[in-house]
Amino acid sequence: MQVSELFVSAPGKAILHGEHAVVHGKVALAVSLNLRTYLRLETSTTGKVCINLPNIDTFFCWDVSELKQLITYSHVMRAVFKFLCMKRSLVFTLCFIFSELPSLTVSVWSELPTGAGLGSSAAYSVCLAAALLSASGAIPTPLKEWDHTGRWCQEDLELINSWAFQGETIIHGNPSGVDNAVGTWGGMLRFLAGKIIPLNRVPLLRILLTNTKVPRSTKVLVARVKDKINKFPSIMTPVLDSVDAISCTCEKVLSEMTCEPITGEHYNILEELIDINQHHLNVMGVGHPTLDTLCQVTRTRGLHSKLTGAGGGGCGITLLRPETDYSVVQSTVQDLRDCGFDCWETSIGGPGVQQHSPLSIKEESLEILRRY
Amino acid sequence: MQVSELFVSAPGKAILHGEHAVVHGKVALAVSLNLRTYLRLETSTTGKVCINLPNIDTFFCWDVSELKQLITYSHVMRAVFKFLCMKRSLVFTLCFIFSELPSLTVSVWSELPTGAGLGSSAAYSVCLAAALLSASGAIPTPLKEWDHTGRWCQEDLELINSWAFQGETIIHGNPSGVDNAVGTWGGMLRFLAGKIIPLNRVPLLRILLTNTKVPRSTKVLVARVKDKINKFPSIMTPVLDSVDAISCTCEKVLSEMTCEPITGEHYNILEELIDINQHHLNVMGVGHPTLDTLCQVTRTRGLHSKLTGAGGGGCGITLLRPETDYSVVQSTVQDLRDCGFDCWETSIGGPGVQQHSPLSIKEESLEILRRY
Repeated sequence: MQVSELFVSAPGKAILHGEHAVVHGKVALAVSLNLRTYLRLETSTTGKVCINLPNIDTFFCWDVSELKQLITYSHVMRAVFKFLCMKRSLVFTLCFIFSELPSLTVSVWSELPTGAGLGSSAAYSVCLAAALLSASGAIPTPLKEWDHTGRWCQEDLELINSWAFQGETIIHGNPSGVDNAVGTWGGMLRFLAGKIIPLNRVPLLRILLTNTKVPRSTKVLVARVKDKINKFPSIMTPVLDSVDAISCTCEKVLSEMTCEPITGEHYNILEELIDINQHHLNVMGVGHPTLDTLCQVTRTRGLHSKLTGAGGGGCGITLLRPETDYSVVQSTVQDLRDCGFDCWETSIGGPGVQQHSPLSIKEESLEILRRY
Repeated sequence: MQVSELFVSAPGKAILHGEHAVVHGKVALAVSLNLRTYLRLETSTTGKVCINLPNIDTFFCWDVSELKQLITYSHVMRAVFKFLCMKRSLVFTLCFIFSELPSLTVSVWSELPTGAGLGSSAAYSVCLAAALLSASGAIPTPLKEWDHTGRWCQEDLELINSWAFQGETIIHGNPSGVDNAVGTWGGMLRFLAGKIIPLNRVPLLRILLTNTKVPRSTKVLVARVKDKINKFPSIMTPVLDSVDAISCTCEKVLSEMTCEPITGEHYNILEELIDINQHHLNVMGVGHPTLDTLCQVTRTRGLHSKLTGAGGGGCGITLLRPETDYSVVQSTVQDLRDCGFDCWETSIGGPGVQQHSPLSIKEESLEILRRY
């Protein structure tokens, strides 16, 4: 063990374009969502491994000796701990990274709502992998003394990502790998036919993230789209092609925005793409009255929204232009909260996993992370 | 002159699917709209030609001798009478159909709103052509003594249609020929790359026709769609393909409904096609907040709507299922009127131009037609 206290964070994920179409071989664009999960790792001499997840009121401590047995009987424990996904992920990772089981306390605090399709489990897995790999000395800690945040080099990120993917596999069974890749690399990535390509440079875009809090089953929604394609192949196939073109056009515009002066027209196009895709998603049958409400409420403020992820409720994103007034943002957020939604002002395209100095973490988050 | 009093009517037109896409080489389906224009022709010995258009508060009488000059100086009069399109149409038709100018009174009463893209001028031209051709003896009057309505044979309909097209040319300059064809043949017709194919049998469908009364310019809307296709060809071309497939699927379903027992699933599909196309029309940029309101209001009653025609306001149609309760229809109509819209319960797919016995015309319409 090389560190006594380590802070890391990883972003959530949003699908900018291509949700559902990706299932049918089309391009999807996944972006980092700057609602982050923060993890504090503290080494101790208690002979215990403690994990604190205050977001979900979950606090566990095990004796290191107890965990050792878990390695041997891991196939039994997989079933026993099935309902405790995050714990299993921790234990699994611990067992493989450290040659000798250490005693330590891990506290996690997330700005992300869980189970909303925003990659909260991946952000957790990425943080855990980064913290444990760093604490074990498998990769260096990138934070320089004079910096507030530090990023790992490409090679280290690949190791973090592969461990995070293992965590996701335990949690989800058969993850696409998109969520952990976004949590690791941040920015934006292109997802096509199972291949994940991180995109070099993307602009940071201000958004509102709205959670309609309508529960939905991704599996049911994916099946619904499939049924509709089977029912109306000649009508639906072109819609998927159009979504594919939306993703490609969006990628092109975002890339232009990083290498030429950003203009209002760039934002106009991004808004048009959002509107078109939202209609296409409705055509696929994954809309929801609450999402219509989101679009309507934001449109009265001149803002453009689409669902993100599975749809049928869940979350939506609203693009904010650089010139959008603070007052407009505040009143829109209030309107959406009045609809019963959760709503955050945040950004997409920000950095992936990073190490933090305590100073770079919001005081209330730091207080929570250190409380346990 | 063979008749002293003759009643004819012709239906309006609605686009069921394919508006705008038809401009880009895709299939459109035009259907007869059972809001009809009624025309009464009465021969007289006054030496005058009178035309009464109470819908638009327009009443004219000319001496037959005056009209004779109009033939000679028709190229001058075309300019003079440019603002009196309907009068010009009448005069033009009169001059060519009759070898000797007759004295007669024509009264027209229409259930169709004018200038709403519902083919009101074509219904007028079709009625005028049918009445004058019949009155002159160029075609027989098809009404049998014991019948309430009579339809001309195919050959006569073709003559009526070609004269109606001439009227439309005077009124519109460069008409597509769709409106007069629907007014003549009724039912449904397929329009593709300038070719008009009347479809043999279609079911009569109950609908609501709603006029948002938002004025719009078809030319501006057509240009808007073209601009969007030029701006996003890879995104928009598939949308047009999808609309094309919607028209073809709809045609297939309607044809099935005439040769097999009509089921709820037939209506489910028609509703799904309406919803998908309305989204596509929004994608093309020809939606309007009032049309969104129409869709929302009807959806709360379980009914499905789309714009018809140019969009950007204008009219929308709402499909009624056979089992839709009278009370549901009435409250929906009331809701839509409360939004400031005009709304009629009517049907699509009904007969084209027909001759009427006075008994088959609603009393209030008959009263108006005979008043002048």
